[in-house]
Amino acid sequence: MTEAFLAQCRDIAGAAFVLDRLDDMAPYLTDWRGRFTGRALAVLRPQDTAQVALLVQACVRHRVPIVPQGGKTGLVLGSVPDDSGTAVVLSLGRLNRIRALDSINRTVTVDAGVILQTVQEAAAAHDLLFPLSLAAEGSCTIGGNLSTNAGGTAVLRYGNTRELCLGLEVVTPQGEIWDGLRALRKDNTGYDLRDLLIGAEGTLGIITGAVMKLFPQPRAAITALVALGSARDALGLLTLVQDTCGAALTGFELMSAVCLDLVATHFPQLQQPFGARHAHYVLLEVSSNESEQHAVALLERAIGQAVDEGVCDDAVVATSLAQSRGLWNLREHIPLAQAAAGKNIKHDISLPISRIPEFIATTDAALAAAFPDAEVICFGHLGDGNLHYNVAPKSGAGHDAFLANQLAINRIVNDNVDALHGSISAEHGIGALKREDLARYKEPVELNMMRAIKAALDPLGIMNPGKIL
Amino acid sequence: MTEAFLAQCRDIAGAAFVLDRLDDMAPYLTDWRGRFTGRALAVLRPQDTAQVALLVQACVRHRVPIVPQGGKTGLVLGSVPDDSGTAVVLSLGRLNRIRALDSINRTVTVDAGVILQTVQEAAAAHDLLFPLSLAAEGSCTIGGNLSTNAGGTAVLRYGNTRELCLGLEVVTPQGEIWDGLRALRKDNTGYDLRDLLIGAEGTLGIITGAVMKLFPQPRAAITALVALGSARDALGLLTLVQDTCGAALTGFELMSAVCLDLVATHFPQLQQPFGARHAHYVLLEVSSNESEQHAVALLERAIGQAVDEGVCDDAVVATSLAQSRGLWNLREHIPLAQAAAGKNIKHDISLPISRIPEFIATTDAALAAAFPDAEVICFGHLGDGNLHYNVAPKSGAGHDAFLANQLAINRIVNDNVDALHGSISAEHGIGALKREDLARYKEPVELNMMRAIKAALDPLGIMNPGKIL
Repeated sequence: MTEAFLAQCRDIAGAAFVLDRLDDMAPYLTDWRGRFTGRALAVLRPQDTAQVALLVQACVRHRVPIVPQGGKTGLVLGSVPDDSGTAVVLSLGRLNRIRALDSINRTVTVDAGVILQTVQEAAAAHDLLFPLSLAAEGSCTIGGNLSTNAGGTAVLRYGNTRELCLGLEVVTPQGEIWDGLRALRKDNTGYDLRDLLIGAEGTLGIITGAVMKLFPQPRAAITALVALGSARDALGLLTLVQDTCGAALTGFELMSAVCLDLVATHFPQLQQPFGARHAHYVLLEVSSNESEQHAVALLERAIGQAVDEGVCDDAVVATSLAQSRGLWNLREHIPLAQAAAGKNIKHDISLPISRIPEFIATTDAALAAAFPDAEVICFGHLGDGNLHYNVAPKSGAGHDAFLANQLAINRIVNDNVDALHGSISAEHGIGALKREDLARYKEPVELNMMRAIKAALDPLGIMNPGKIL
Repeated sequence: MTEAFLAQCRDIAGAAFVLDRLDDMAPYLTDWRGRFTGRALAVLRPQDTAQVALLVQACVRHRVPIVPQGGKTGLVLGSVPDDSGTAVVLSLGRLNRIRALDSINRTVTVDAGVILQTVQEAAAAHDLLFPLSLAAEGSCTIGGNLSTNAGGTAVLRYGNTRELCLGLEVVTPQGEIWDGLRALRKDNTGYDLRDLLIGAEGTLGIITGAVMKLFPQPRAAITALVALGSARDALGLLTLVQDTCGAALTGFELMSAVCLDLVATHFPQLQQPFGARHAHYVLLEVSSNESEQHAVALLERAIGQAVDEGVCDDAVVATSLAQSRGLWNLREHIPLAQAAAGKNIKHDISLPISRIPEFIATTDAALAAAFPDAEVICFGHLGDGNLHYNVAPKSGAGHDAFLANQLAINRIVNDNVDALHGSISAEHGIGALKREDLARYKEPVELNMMRAIKAALDPLGIMNPGKIL
């Protein structure tokens, strides 16, 4: 049975691209963080959409579950198989062509397996911007970005991956090819299957190609670091900068004092711009399609107003690319400093922006009451309402023992998120890791609609089983 | 049976809000353009979401089909019942509260039956912008805008209604209430039911409430009219203005010479800014969050470059609000001039922007060959790839006879749209009017996925039957 199936797969994709020896399969079975290793019947590496469709048809005939896999950089165990050994991993890595770039329509049509950075570079070669940007961009694929509706650092101005996509090509759970590669800004002809497939984490079909939006390259981006007395002041600053700068505001990152303390401890060589310690900091970025001068003027005007209105204690504006890099470095070294300090308990949450000070205050207090040794490392994309609200032991030691509190700490954080109508997974998705949390926090009405759609489109349940639902 | 059903409805909504006399029902049964009058068992006018849910439950028990209705301004017979007389119209008009406005999170939570203009005014009262804007804004409801994913004049900068919505409250075809009123910019917790319901034209459930995005009010908007030698030059101009102005570009409307001729004939009192006649014109609008001076400088720089690059023959920049109004008036009087000239055959289509000159050339030629008397009135939101490509008889007489060619002319236009991977309904939807066209031009794979979803969420088929599918 298995042999007959594998023989069919070899006929379709070529023997070299059907891996069933454990050491050949190994790189495809362990998740990005190295926390889990699954098992698989085989790893399939088709070269194009037609082969993907034929392989899915073979899986349907033999009732073999399929785990679609892109760059495998996800954080919620969405793209690795479980430990049953009954599924195949279907790697999209060989579907790696930029199919077309239309510089007038401002769209690029890509295979799902193209690396995100390659898409960015293809756009830049035409003096255009593909704005999706995130830490894993050198490894993750656009198909994975779409399947997880990836967020990243440009969401404030350009939206999540969903907002950047105009059309999809998808192999259905029946092994048919849906050519939805439309490159249109307006199209009201029936149900929005595109957005249903985006973020479905490979449970409703396999994305094999996409049409993505491109934008003009900004001529300049200017950065500032602003010191503030409270998280509530950060909201005042956000409102003010949005009004002054409109769409020119491209970054608004919140960091607590604890975050910069941690960076100072582990990366003393990085220059910290302020002499005094402040409760919170905001990293601001303003971009301009006109000139650097224009961006500087906008940013300085906004900060001047913030000082006048008392929502800003101090500020430095980067006057060179190197200074700007230095300020972003502080932000980007927070996770590195955390890693250097030891393991911690991470939360990728979002809230209505107006509720963030309340969330921080009540959750900090609840954690302090339950775990006097807990320290919160809170930073994130405040402009998107997205916080990385991480928890570690104060002492700096005993990290492994502290991790035993993970479930209890998750519960406190997620209950508070839920009470303020937030999301327990802002940009990482659900995968296998947060499946139980989803069942806990989603209303039955919504879960039932999701289950009905899953059963309708994938009645055999062979697409990425055990993920999301 | 019917009496038992109506009695239940009266118990739920109150006798005054269950209309079953023909003259009471009449205003709910004829479509906006007055082309079709349906029949209904009754018109139900619930006052809140709870009543909507109870009414749907009553309909489920008695297997009564439901036609949800907002402002009834749709153009594709999506919100009026068929002539069977078996369905109820469920009017959302009494769900008309602004539930909450959060000026920091920049969101407004509204009942589905709130008039679009009321949402705009609520935002403006907080010095914020709700950008959705279209001709029917004084009558249409936000629920109808969502159910049809309405477009309008601000899509270039702010997107369609879908892009403006963060969360929905929906009564399911089972009469359950799904509270998806999330006010989050990032939320990756399962399938995107929100976007599936948006644009579903009431066939998958009834939208009863929504969370919509708000934006800073621009301080100034400056308008120019540019004369061009060809539609291809309009693409050159678009690229150039996008690069120069970025997100400040808020309008880019194409009009052919025939359009302005028609306006000159029927509205001779409107001033036409150019002495000479040009093949095409573009109405440009640039907005600024900074100042009027900034908007003028941006626009003049872009037009200067366009002259230098030879993609622009002549241009006038409005230097006052009155002049700006005058230029927009020319654009807005095109449909009025058409109506004055007599009936015509309308198409609301979209294309990849880069294919528009090719589409116009080949479709103009095909129509001229088949109907030597046909004249094309082509204008639209070029920046969105959305054309109103209307066809009338040249002579200005014999309009009724010419309309007999409607099906043949639709076929030529839609076949050309399809060949260039465009959409046969860019912003109006499908409703009952374009259902057969949808079946003709959509791939079976996509239609089957749509049918599977419909059957899964509405197994009794009681939600707006005969629309879309």
